[in-house]
Amino acid sequence: MISSKHLIRDEDIELEDIGGGLTRKILGYNHQLMLVKVWFEEGAIGYIHEHYHAQSTYVESGEFEVTVGDEVQTLKAGDSFFIPPNTKHGAVCKKAGTLIDTFSPVREDFLKDF
Amino acid sequence: MISSKHLIRDEDIELEDIGGGLTRKILGYNHQLMLVKVWFEEGAIGYIHEHYHAQSTYVESGEFEVTVGDEVQTLKAGDSFFIPPNTKHGAVCKKAGTLIDTFSPVREDFLKDF
Repeated sequence: MISSKHLIRDEDIELEDIGGGLTRKILGYNHQLMLVKVWFEEGAIGYIHEHYHAQSTYVESGEFEVTVGDEVQTLKAGDSFFIPPNTKHGAVCKKAGTLIDTFSPVREDFLKDF
Repeated sequence: MISSKHLIRDEDIELEDIGGGLTRKILGYNHQLMLVKVWFEEGAIGYIHEHYHAQSTYVESGEFEVTVGDEVQTLKAGDSFFIPPNTKHGAVCKKAGTLIDTFSPVREDFLKDF
């Protein structure tokens, strides 16, 4: 059974550079659920893509033009979005900030040891 | 099939007073996954409890003494914690702040219309 640690200090988690002005930390997870913090530089793009996982995201800071299916809105700190499984989505960062992305089930493709 | 809206503006979501210095907003969800923002006043307590849902939480602001099973640590903004299903956990707010709680599956007990 895969699982993160239970109590997670920010400074203990590796910051991964995933290219294109995006960095991330993989925080708490098991096979059902994963929480990932993603930093966007201004102008960075989460290109339109889809996956079978459900995704619920909280905008912690910054400003993002978010697309889910055929809906598009500019969202800022405190706003959020939900992506049903197998639904095209993406985000263009208008002001640098962070997203708290959560997935169910786990994004096994994010885990090196999976 | 239950689901929140896809694009969620903070000001459109009801702030629920759940007592004891705690308020919350239920953000994006479907049957698999739910994201909830919880505000704690200083001294507010999330009493030790357990549930069959997995939980992954991000500390957005403030300071919390967090218990998961027999582990206890004081966590602050940027830290996080993971609670396996059926594991006792709680949080005591040491400095006012917000937690981003996520659950899998959905916390059907949080939905009035479920």
